[in-house]
Amino acid sequence: MLIVQKYGGTSVGSLERIEAVAKRVAKTKDEGNDVVVVVSAMSGETNKLIEYANYFSKTPNQREMDLLLSSGERVTSALLAIALSEMGYKAVAMTGRQAGIKTDTSHTKARIENIDTQKIERKIKDGNIVVIAGFQGITKDGEVSTLGRGGSDLSAVAIAGALRADLCEIYTDVDGVYTTDPRIEPKARKLEKISYDEMLELASLGAKVLQTRSVEMAKKLNVNLVTRSSFNNNEGTLITKEENIMEKPVVSGVALDRNQARVTLREVKDKPGIAAEIFRKLSDSNINVDMIIQNVGHDGVTNLGFTVPENELETTKVAMEELDASKSVEYDSEIVKVSIVGVGMKSHSGVACIAFETLSKEGINIEMISTSEIKISMVIAAKYGELAVRALHSAYNLDG
Amino acid sequence: MLIVQKYGGTSVGSLERIEAVAKRVAKTKDEGNDVVVVVSAMSGETNKLIEYANYFSKTPNQREMDLLLSSGERVTSALLAIALSEMGYKAVAMTGRQAGIKTDTSHTKARIENIDTQKIERKIKDGNIVVIAGFQGITKDGEVSTLGRGGSDLSAVAIAGALRADLCEIYTDVDGVYTTDPRIEPKARKLEKISYDEMLELASLGAKVLQTRSVEMAKKLNVNLVTRSSFNNNEGTLITKEENIMEKPVVSGVALDRNQARVTLREVKDKPGIAAEIFRKLSDSNINVDMIIQNVGHDGVTNLGFTVPENELETTKVAMEELDASKSVEYDSEIVKVSIVGVGMKSHSGVACIAFETLSKEGINIEMISTSEIKISMVIAAKYGELAVRALHSAYNLDG
Repeated sequence: MLIVQKYGGTSVGSLERIEAVAKRVAKTKDEGNDVVVVVSAMSGETNKLIEYANYFSKTPNQREMDLLLSSGERVTSALLAIALSEMGYKAVAMTGRQAGIKTDTSHTKARIENIDTQKIERKIKDGNIVVIAGFQGITKDGEVSTLGRGGSDLSAVAIAGALRADLCEIYTDVDGVYTTDPRIEPKARKLEKISYDEMLELASLGAKVLQTRSVEMAKKLNVNLVTRSSFNNNEGTLITKEENIMEKPVVSGVALDRNQARVTLREVKDKPGIAAEIFRKLSDSNINVDMIIQNVGHDGVTNLGFTVPENELETTKVAMEELDASKSVEYDSEIVKVSIVGVGMKSHSGVACIAFETLSKEGINIEMISTSEIKISMVIAAKYGELAVRALHSAYNLDG
Repeated sequence: MLIVQKYGGTSVGSLERIEAVAKRVAKTKDEGNDVVVVVSAMSGETNKLIEYANYFSKTPNQREMDLLLSSGERVTSALLAIALSEMGYKAVAMTGRQAGIKTDTSHTKARIENIDTQKIERKIKDGNIVVIAGFQGITKDGEVSTLGRGGSDLSAVAIAGALRADLCEIYTDVDGVYTTDPRIEPKARKLEKISYDEMLELASLGAKVLQTRSVEMAKKLNVNLVTRSSFNNNEGTLITKEENIMEKPVVSGVALDRNQARVTLREVKDKPGIAAEIFRKLSDSNINVDMIIQNVGHDGVTNLGFTVPENELETTKVAMEELDASKSVEYDSEIVKVSIVGVGMKSHSGVACIAFETLSKEGINIEMISTSEIKISMVIAAKYGELAVRALHSAYNLDG
C-alpha cells in the first residue's frame, strides 16, 4: 500500500515526540508499505513566529509572513528525515516547492492549484520514505505561500489524492471521531467509519478533529482519510464515501456549538429587497451568518432572526447600527446550537420528531430549527447545552 | 550609491536588535542610496538547530542539514523586511534561491558558482530595500545548500560583486580591524584602510573580524569591503585594493595565533620522497600544516619541523604513529605564532631585523621563522606571546 501520514504540531512537539513519530513511520514501512509523511511545525513554533512578526507590525506583509511561517515545517521535515536515516531507512525531506505543490498567489491563505508529483514518485521508487513540509507551497512566480489554518492536513490530503494513495492518516492528539464530545458525555463512542458528508457537517459544527477544507478536498479527490492519535495505537476513524459504509446508522453523532449568538430584527422595515440588503451588509463585513429564520409577517412588517459566531457579534452590532433596517435589534449570546448528524436520516422518517420530543421531555425550549438532508440543528438556551447533548445521545442509541 | 550591508548573528540577535538594524538600513536609504541587506540567523539559532539534529544523529545527512540550517536566515530576512515596511519603506525579503544564488552540490560547504541578479535588480529598480537570507543558495537540481562557516559574509561579498555595488559593509560586534588585539595591547589603533592581501594574512592568522574566504572573494571581485560595528556609529575599516591606499605603512598589524602546536621529527628515515610521504599522510588526514622547516641534514638524516593547529594535534599524533617515518617524534603545544603584516615590507629592507632585535631584547627565543612578501611569522614559547605582541607593536610605531 501507499500510505500518506500527516503528523500535527503536538505529535512532533518535541525531539522525543519526533523520535516516536520516526518509529511509527518506520513500522509502517517495515510492514511493506510505501510511506509519504507530511509534518507540521513543532507546536508553539508558528505562534512564536507570529509573535515575532507582530512585534514589528500588527499588519505584516503577507508575502513575508509566508516566508517566515514556512520555516517551521522545514525544520520538522529535516529532523524527521535525519531521525529515519539514523535508524537505517532511506529518507529524504522536501519543502513544499520541492514536493511540487503549486498554489495560487493568495499569501497566508493560498489554495493548492495542482501537485507535480514527479519528484515525490521518483524518490518513493528509489525506496525512500519521503518527508514533506506541510502547510506550504509555491506560486507560479516562485514565491513561498502558506495554506492557512489546517494547512498541513490539506497538504496531506492533496498529496494523497495526487499520488492516488490507498490511505491518508491524519495523526493528532485525539483518537478519532466520536459520537459526541466525551468531555460532555462519557458514554460517547469512537466511530469506526463515517461518510465525508457527515464529517463535513460535524467539522463545521465544531468537532475539532479535522477542518472542513480538508474533508471537502478528501471528498473531491476520493481520498480515504483516517484520523487517529500518535500517542497510542488505537484504531482511528475512517472517513470515506458513503458507498464504503455498509451499515449506516440513522444518527452518527451529536454536536454542540457554543460559539453562537442570535440576532433578532424586530419589525423589519417594509421595502423591497430589505433582506438582501441586510445579508449583503453582513457579507461585506465578513460575518459568517449561519441559521436564518423569517416568519410570515403581518401588517406589512416581519421579524427576522439569524445566528452568527459569537466572536463576530461586535462586528455584527456595528453593521446593524449602520444599516438601521428595523425598529429594534436584539442580541443574545446566551445560546448554543445542538445538532444531530447522520446519513441514515435520508431514508428514515421521524428522526426530527425524536429530537423534539427528547428536548421537550427535558423541559428545553427550542428557539430556532434548521435542517438539511443529513442534519438537524436546534438553537437552545446555553445553560441546557450539555443536558441536550446527553439526552439526544441516549435517545438515538449512541451510548457505548 | 548601491550599498550591500551584511548583519551578523549578534547584530540581529533579538527583536530589539533587528529593530535597530532596520533603523540603520533606513538611514542608509534616506541618504539617497540603494540598499541590499544580507542577514545571518539570530545568534544561537543555528547552534540550536545543530543540537536538534545531533539529538538524532552524530552524522546527519548533509542535504537535510542544509534544509534545516537555512531556515534561520529566512526568519531574520522576513522579520527585517516586515520591520522596514512598517517604517514606511518598500522592502522585500528573499531566500538564497529567490536571490538567484547558484551553488555547487557540496552540501553544508557549498561554493557559489554564480548569481543571477535579475530579480534583485528588478526589486531595487522598483524602489525596494532588498533583504536577502545569507549563508544559503540553491543547486542546479533545486536543492537547498549552505555555504559553511562565515557563509553570510560570503553571500554579501558575492552579491556586492555581482551587482557591482559601490560598497559592501560587514556589520559585526567589533569596530573594525585593529593594529593588534586590543585585549592584549590597549594602545592598539583601528586601521582606516587595509589592503586585501594584508587582511588575508591577518584573517588567516586569527584576527576574527573576517574569514579568509570572504576576503579572497572580495579581492577577486574587486569589492570594497568595510567592516564595522552595528552597536555604534564609529567608522569601520575599509578593505580595498592596494592602489586605493595612498600612504602604505611598513607594518599594518601584529597578530597572535595561539592555536598552534609544533611537531618535530628527529632523524627522518633516509629514503627518497620521505617528505612527500609525510605531508601526503597529513593531507589525507585533513590536517592543515602551517609552517614547515627542514634544515640541511648530516650523516644522511635530518630533522623535520612543522606546525599544525593545536586542535588537530591528536589526529596528527595518530597519523605520525601510523607512518613511522623517523626515529622519534616530539610534540609541543606550548607555543604560539606571532606575525607582523604589512604591504610596505615589499619596499623596505630591514623590517625583519627590527622584529628579531625586539624579541631578543626581551629575552624571547625565536624557535621557527617563516616569511612571505608581506608577512613575517615567528614561533615562540606560549608564555611570551602577549609580551612579544606589545613589544613588536611598539617597535613598529603602531601604538596609538
